Amino acid sequence: MDVKEKALMMHEQWKGKIEVVCRAPAKTKEDLTVAYTPGVAEPCLRIAADPSLSYKYTRRWNTVAVITNGTAVLGLGDIGPEASMPVMEGKCMLFKSFGDVDAIPICIRSKNVKEIVRTVELLLGSFGGINLEDIAAPDCFIIERELKKISDIPIFHDDQHGTAVVALAALSNALKLTGKKPQDLKIAISGAGAAGQSVSLLLMKFGVKDITLCDRKGTVYTGRENLDPERAELAKITNPRLVKGSLADALKGADVFVGLSAPGLVTADMVRTMAKDPIIFAMANPVPEIMPDQALAGGAVIVGTGRSDFPNQINNVLAFPGILRGALDVRASDINEDMKLAAAIAIADFVKKEDLKTDHIMPAAFEPGVGAAVAKAVAQAARSSGVARI
Amino acid sequence: MDVKEKALMMHEQWKGKIEVVCRAPAKTKEDLTVAYTPGVAEPCLRIAADPSLSYKYTRRWNTVAVITNGTAVLGLGDIGPEASMPVMEGKCMLFKSFGDVDAIPICIRSKNVKEIVRTVELLLGSFGGINLEDIAAPDCFIIERELKKISDIPIFHDDQHGTAVVALAALSNALKLTGKKPQDLKIAISGAGAAGQSVSLLLMKFGVKDITLCDRKGTVYTGRENLDPERAELAKITNPRLVKGSLADALKGADVFVGLSAPGLVTADMVRTMAKDPIIFAMANPVPEIMPDQALAGGAVIVGTGRSDFPNQINNVLAFPGILRGALDVRASDINEDMKLAAAIAIADFVKKEDLKTDHIMPAAFEPGVGAAVAKAVAQAARSSGVARI
Repeated sequence: MDVKEKALMMHEQWKGKIEVVCRAPAKTKEDLTVAYTPGVAEPCLRIAADPSLSYKYTRRWNTVAVITNGTAVLGLGDIGPEASMPVMEGKCMLFKSFGDVDAIPICIRSKNVKEIVRTVELLLGSFGGINLEDIAAPDCFIIERELKKISDIPIFHDDQHGTAVVALAALSNALKLTGKKPQDLKIAISGAGAAGQSVSLLLMKFGVKDITLCDRKGTVYTGRENLDPERAELAKITNPRLVKGSLADALKGADVFVGLSAPGLVTADMVRTMAKDPIIFAMANPVPEIMPDQALAGGAVIVGTGRSDFPNQINNVLAFPGILRGALDVRASDINEDMKLAAAIAIADFVKKEDLKTDHIMPAAFEPGVGAAVAKAVAQAARSSGVARI
Repeated sequence: MDVKEKALMMHEQWKGKIEVVCRAPAKTKEDLTVAYTPGVAEPCLRIAADPSLSYKYTRRWNTVAVITNGTAVLGLGDIGPEASMPVMEGKCMLFKSFGDVDAIPICIRSKNVKEIVRTVELLLGSFGGINLEDIAAPDCFIIERELKKISDIPIFHDDQHGTAVVALAALSNALKLTGKKPQDLKIAISGAGAAGQSVSLLLMKFGVKDITLCDRKGTVYTGRENLDPERAELAKITNPRLVKGSLADALKGADVFVGLSAPGLVTADMVRTMAKDPIIFAMANPVPEIMPDQALAGGAVIVGTGRSDFPNQINNVLAFPGILRGALDVRASDINEDMKLAAAIAIADFVKKEDLKTDHIMPAAFEPGVGAAVAKAVAQAARSSGVARI
């Protein structure tokens, strides 16, 4: 049986990948006088007097909404809210399994940015955090930006920031092995969408100075025709050498390639034009921009992909459960660049110095303790950057 | 320790009364290839082609949203969305414990009817049903009515319909004991709000012809000054004798009193003015319209209240878990009067003929099997009334 058939069969058998259970007993009259009427009135009144007590008397402290409108699901595109639910339930499983976070999937029937923002805004009081997921660009940028302005709980768009965190974790360890320094790197990124933007910003936070982004029309630079607002902003802060042309041009002399785009865009010959000891993170899923054997043939010294069947899997699951766990633990009002940076370093440092090798720069997705290590670092960064509330 | 202190202590200790757990394993790489990428793409694509398959491949078939805006919580009034969460979590516990329904609490930060309707509309694709809860009248009527028009899943306002179902269950068994017939009854109802409206409609569905509703201004009749739209509609179909005056006037010669209002409105002397063998359901919580000993002193033959410490507790928990369970089981598009009637009869019939006594007209809230019996009857009624979809 292939994985498609097995997935269908198992999804039918599971009848849903998550479920709600009771934490308080409801077996006797006495149980209900405490958990429900009349006893429940007391925590209600306390929260009415001080809404922050909702974190003490309800599950809010541990609950995140996983919110999508189903417009950019996996590589499947705009499949709609109902059809995105299997992915959202899967995400909720990962939150629970790797971060002990209660995550609730919510699929919104709208493609109107303003309406989505308003809908999420009205739900903020029920949750301790919001994970935006699989919403098409550029709507995802606007939704996240607007929500961050008005929200009293952290807003995290995993497709952007989770990816940025694991990409930086991989880079950080690759640099330990190659001895290169962030400020000296030339980095070419394929994909100037949601993830490309966030990866660029986080790499710069890490000290990288020279990033060239490419989309289907070639490199992104100020003055290029028809730049959308997000790319125009990125053009201002990236591509300091004003590289024009194609991805091949961006790769010439680059130390690092980060692929957030589509299968097969990079060849071994292109890798040969890169700087000495090139680092390749070809993260397109499920088929990377260049297969590892081809990248190595082109001279790459370190190759990572999104796939579990090759070494150096660069997988968001290393990041988002611990990031939200850490944010919840200190009741952070935001998930900022400091926290993402801390998460990336925590993931990188989870690989012990003696285990660090060119084919082992990332912890395994299932390595116990990664989520907790990330959570601890993120909580600490929230504190030191002033967004922790407890 | 009194119940208030104990409730506070336990709520703090529980750290939330519900929690999300995984139904599918997420321990190994292989687990995730089936539950998450790449396998998950297959159920996604199937649902994209046929959205009804979301009931097969996700938890939608068993999931209900418990939605409030916190404007009429218990007897506490408008305490806001965050403060209503302990009640909503409690409701979710009851759904799980007595109906095996996964219920998710959602507290909306809005008092704008149109906005609440739109918010819930945008969430419909994530759930198999919606339970509206503790929303102030008249907004709750409008929200339910508008949602019923546009929703492809059942909408149930428990404060109205759950109360109506248990009130009718109690009446049905009281009639078995007193030998009175629905069509011969005169019924006085104190409270012409959300519950009063739904109770009236369901009693009429049961065959009752003569209902007089009272609110703070007295009996409701066509032509009374300042009737709101809901009461004006009710006036058209109730109070056939055009009784004017106070609750005392409505009670004169009445066979049944149904209290959905406030403590102490009825006296033993008022009961003495009722018809022979009066039936008293004083459901105001926690203090009834008349205490049972006073009602009996006034000549009542059957007395029920909302309280567990007196005989004949008339409690919504007997109704809503089974009603939503039954609706989900046949994927009902609506919860209609036939289904509510069937639920009431199922609750009444759960008390065996030989056990039926004036001080035992209702099953105990914790009697095993009530939810399942209600679910079965509701599913059957959904089928025969044409709203079942499987």
